[in-house]
Amino acid sequence: MGSATATATATATGAVDKGVDFANYFCTYGFLYHQKEMLCDRVRMDAYFNAIFENKHDFEGKTVLDVGTGSGILAIWCAQAGARKVYAVEATKMAVHASQLVHANKLQDVVQVIEGSMEDITLPEKVDVIISEWMGYFLLRESMLDSVICARNRWLKPNGVMYPSHARMWMAPIRSGLVDQKMSDYEGAMDDWYSFINETKSYYGVDMSVLTRSFTEEQRKYYMQTSIWNNLHPNQIIGTPTIIMEMDCLTTTVDDIRTVRASISSSITEENARFCGFAGWFDVHFRGSSKNPAQSEIELTTAPSYDSGTHWGQQVFLLYPSLNVQQGDDLVIQFSMSRSKDNHRLMEVDLSCEIRQSSSGELLSPFRNNFLH
Amino acid sequence: MGSATATATATATGAVDKGVDFANYFCTYGFLYHQKEMLCDRVRMDAYFNAIFENKHDFEGKTVLDVGTGSGILAIWCAQAGARKVYAVEATKMAVHASQLVHANKLQDVVQVIEGSMEDITLPEKVDVIISEWMGYFLLRESMLDSVICARNRWLKPNGVMYPSHARMWMAPIRSGLVDQKMSDYEGAMDDWYSFINETKSYYGVDMSVLTRSFTEEQRKYYMQTSIWNNLHPNQIIGTPTIIMEMDCLTTTVDDIRTVRASISSSITEENARFCGFAGWFDVHFRGSSKNPAQSEIELTTAPSYDSGTHWGQQVFLLYPSLNVQQGDDLVIQFSMSRSKDNHRLMEVDLSCEIRQSSSGELLSPFRNNFLH
Repeated sequence: MGSATATATATATGAVDKGVDFANYFCTYGFLYHQKEMLCDRVRMDAYFNAIFENKHDFEGKTVLDVGTGSGILAIWCAQAGARKVYAVEATKMAVHASQLVHANKLQDVVQVIEGSMEDITLPEKVDVIISEWMGYFLLRESMLDSVICARNRWLKPNGVMYPSHARMWMAPIRSGLVDQKMSDYEGAMDDWYSFINETKSYYGVDMSVLTRSFTEEQRKYYMQTSIWNNLHPNQIIGTPTIIMEMDCLTTTVDDIRTVRASISSSITEENARFCGFAGWFDVHFRGSSKNPAQSEIELTTAPSYDSGTHWGQQVFLLYPSLNVQQGDDLVIQFSMSRSKDNHRLMEVDLSCEIRQSSSGELLSPFRNNFLH
Repeated sequence: MGSATATATATATGAVDKGVDFANYFCTYGFLYHQKEMLCDRVRMDAYFNAIFENKHDFEGKTVLDVGTGSGILAIWCAQAGARKVYAVEATKMAVHASQLVHANKLQDVVQVIEGSMEDITLPEKVDVIISEWMGYFLLRESMLDSVICARNRWLKPNGVMYPSHARMWMAPIRSGLVDQKMSDYEGAMDDWYSFINETKSYYGVDMSVLTRSFTEEQRKYYMQTSIWNNLHPNQIIGTPTIIMEMDCLTTTVDDIRTVRASISSSITEENARFCGFAGWFDVHFRGSSKNPAQSEIELTTAPSYDSGTHWGQQVFLLYPSLNVQQGDDLVIQFSMSRSKDNHRLMEVDLSCEIRQSSSGELLSPFRNNFLH
């Protein structure tokens, strides 16, 4: 025993130093450290700040609901922008800190912090605006949008506005050294396994080779069939980025997001590039609603960027083996993503790709891989 | 959002690359990778192997229960040592692999793998031997001993034997560079915090300094009040190791281990040493029982070792600030450890230490710290 708690980070980083229970203990949204990480993401912060203060008409004299307020920063901005009342809902103990922050900024008459889950609590009135920073990796990991949809259905006035109002998921073919690194990690793990099999047989008289197939599957899943957080450089994008899903936050339903399916295409834009897989990211927009459009539309994008990455980065889905492609080659991509049965907060992604070569018109036999994301 | 899942390993290692949900997903005892980690621990493996094969009289023609069989290796050894019947109980999906391994080694007539928790399952008979590798970090983390006690109370025959039969927890004063490293990490985190406070005020008009006290507490808890896994060199031990708890596995109760309290002393054995805190470890023995003593007593120790560490390593509890001590100085230590209310698998440790100087006889004012372990 002791191993599963020891190797949480061991498999990820090669160094055994903290247990997975410790990781859990210190890694909920109840910890200020994580609030700070998000509050230090300038792209994120600027987008919400500008969305609020460049659209004060949506807040002056209005009622607002902040879903998952965390430290309370968005609720405080809404109050500073002139809201009559802000309900700031937070499920974790962070609600205590949000309340402290509201008082320290003398906004306790406007901002009411409510500790509880959105599904359980009751507000005294419907609201003009729902604001929330609900986006997970590649938009939908963590499934927090469910709570925002629940809040909207119960508490938003008929002509109310969502902040953000729209969201999109993007995908593009990439080159990446990760494909070699992960393959090498996988091969190393398998070499270790075979030594282990030999030693267990010779030292302890037990033949474990019957487990080789299962170990292989497990390690392939871990190294090659898991999406990878990465902060890509724009020059790693080798084809046209494509939208795989667009969402109007005013109308989307939980059913709409339970499974995301897309048939899309992308053209290779680089000469003689190594095609290693796909990157996925998202953007959201603050556009108000058709009845009440924004005075100033704000975009928050997590696309690969020359200068300003976000804490979301991009999610990388590798395909094996990598392949040389040419400018003009067309990729035809089938994408589907649904919630993992084992863990509601994770997603299962199925990704396949055909390549039509521009030189010959020939169709290469398709790549296919599924991923835990 | 996205941060709590991103920074699970970030805080532990400085590199953001895997989410905490991924850590959980891949870090249960249901994964072969972790079984392999434990199976590669030669100190652990040799101890159990020798305990069984040097005491075949306990197994020949006997019935055995293996609590938490994992890959099934202990159950297989018991069968190879001549057991008539081995019940191998495993709560995770690893039971499937244990069963494969049993069949591959043609022992399916002797070893019966049962998937289920010890508390829920029923055996067709009582057993002569209970074997289990239940030990967590510093013996008691993970609380798996509860299941072994439950198994013993329900299924061990009156004159049955426990493998292992005895366990001890040890503690000794140490020197360690970790005390500087963790203090420096903590100070770095606080410097970051103050920059963050200033930037949030100047860029976004919100004063977050009211949260400084809570952030300080949180970071102190994380860096300075959490036990640390370490593989110590014996020369880092600067005083006499002391037993803080001894346990007879045949008679110990869940109440006995719920809280461990000890008043102990240790003498500094090094000249002019830097006293940085304590290391805790454990050993277990295979001695049979008083009615049925072992033919060959085997020890499994996780003490600091020149050559052969274990995957358990030692748990380090740092005291701040460190202090110079002299050979002959006496430490009087109060130790208590109980289960965390927040997480049943973690422990809360309270540790205080008075130092009586050998030169002056003077009593230095006591250190005290509490830890999450």
